[in-house]
Amino acid sequence: MAHEFDQGPIAEPFLTLVQDYPGAETYPASAFRVEWGPIFHRGRLDGSARVLVIGQDPAASEDITRRILVGGAGHRIQGFLAKLGLNRSYVMINTFLYSVYGQQGGEQHKDDAAIVAYRDSWLTALTRGAQLDAVIALGQLADDAWGKFKTQADPGIASLPYAHITHPTEPESSSGGNQQKLAQAITAMLANWNAALQGLHPQIAHPDNPGPLEPYGESFAPADLVEIPEADLPPGLPTWMRSPAAWAQRTGSTAAEKRATIMITIPAGS
Amino acid sequence: MAHEFDQGPIAEPFLTLVQDYPGAETYPASAFRVEWGPIFHRGRLDGSARVLVIGQDPAASEDITRRILVGGAGHRIQGFLAKLGLNRSYVMINTFLYSVYGQQGGEQHKDDAAIVAYRDSWLTALTRGAQLDAVIALGQLADDAWGKFKTQADPGIASLPYAHITHPTEPESSSGGNQQKLAQAITAMLANWNAALQGLHPQIAHPDNPGPLEPYGESFAPADLVEIPEADLPPGLPTWMRSPAAWAQRTGSTAAEKRATIMITIPAGS
Repeated sequence: MAHEFDQGPIAEPFLTLVQDYPGAETYPASAFRVEWGPIFHRGRLDGSARVLVIGQDPAASEDITRRILVGGAGHRIQGFLAKLGLNRSYVMINTFLYSVYGQQGGEQHKDDAAIVAYRDSWLTALTRGAQLDAVIALGQLADDAWGKFKTQADPGIASLPYAHITHPTEPESSSGGNQQKLAQAITAMLANWNAALQGLHPQIAHPDNPGPLEPYGESFAPADLVEIPEADLPPGLPTWMRSPAAWAQRTGSTAAEKRATIMITIPAGS
Repeated sequence: MAHEFDQGPIAEPFLTLVQDYPGAETYPASAFRVEWGPIFHRGRLDGSARVLVIGQDPAASEDITRRILVGGAGHRIQGFLAKLGLNRSYVMINTFLYSVYGQQGGEQHKDDAAIVAYRDSWLTALTRGAQLDAVIALGQLADDAWGKFKTQADPGIASLPYAHITHPTEPESSSGGNQQKLAQAITAMLANWNAALQGLHPQIAHPDNPGPLEPYGESFAPADLVEIPEADLPPGLPTWMRSPAAWAQRTGSTAAEKRATIMITIPAGS
């Protein structure tokens, strides 16, 4: 049985970018979990991507898989890309290389010149000579990132079809554990996503799986959450690391302990 | 600051080997922790290795780094290689692709044809056309693995300088928590290692750091434990994952829970 895997950033300009990444001098430890290391991307680095996704920052499971957007947010976005006919031809980076710590960490540092400059190096590498049909930003900080990049990008890149959509875990963040609010926020997000899909779907000139657009309903249907492809992760990672189960949790009885700990639990039935 | 990293198995024949690995049909789940996935190697896959190390099976921290021999055993072996003048020109695989579960798991399955065949494919790939000066087996099961491979290897490979040394965590395994027994077992192991070093040191024709052999004393000195090189791990992994601290632990109140759980704790002061 052949297991496809992602070879990672083995070719230039990505090879140099992952060798020369900013650390705590650029990402202050007060606002970012620098101690878990940078997590760079997910998807195609070989120029075959048709869509560029800009996320926000890595979550706990991504500290383990070392690829971004593999947890709950990742499964939702994988489903969004599937509605555009894409199961392979995409690439994703985050606004921030490290996990944001504290509610305002991202907002406070969104204008930091060295953070912007390194991210722009990635955006330049991912867009120059690429064959992108569209760019998608998840949430306001990602929208801000693309806006900053556009000001100095080539005109052909700055004018790419673009959608800023609600961040895939905004419903959880905004509803504070209230199930009714959560359901309402998901409905609102899916309406936002449907509007974006209407604009984006005709722009995808070379989908992996061509087909008509099937919009979301008022809540996520099971088929709307799509497993992370084996081809996106490093070799040998177990299947459950690509599942939507919450298999990685920050745990601890103090803030410091929780920051320093990740508990990995294989989902039951895996 | 440039961070070197290991590009992993991106070239043939390793590319195919990590795509077509055996699973639970070959490694029974009763004897191996197949649910954590296979972990293949550490070190050079580009033919530049001068020494091939055969270990036994991966430990908990290696489920996270996805490279073998990075935990306690790895630091001891990194020090052993340093005494041979090697800080880069080595490659390591394990006897078993998955972590052994239960005391007899390895012994019971050491003769399984499919386990042997897949491992022999790696040994063939690592030795054919290579420039190895020596082969080192850690413990009896690794010695058995090399012995099996030798019976069908080219004569020039079967006759490579070879040392079977005591497994680096045999002292912990054999002393059952008794500190005095542990110290005695370490002394015995280091005597065994010193004897092997006497034979191996003159065989290393192209060390990375040439120099006279400095044998071990009766216990490990701090300099005898050597940090895992950044160049051996995937991109972006934090420094503490290369430290000798026990940062990954299997935890749980039942055997099943413990098997399904790894707790990662960043070492204090990292």
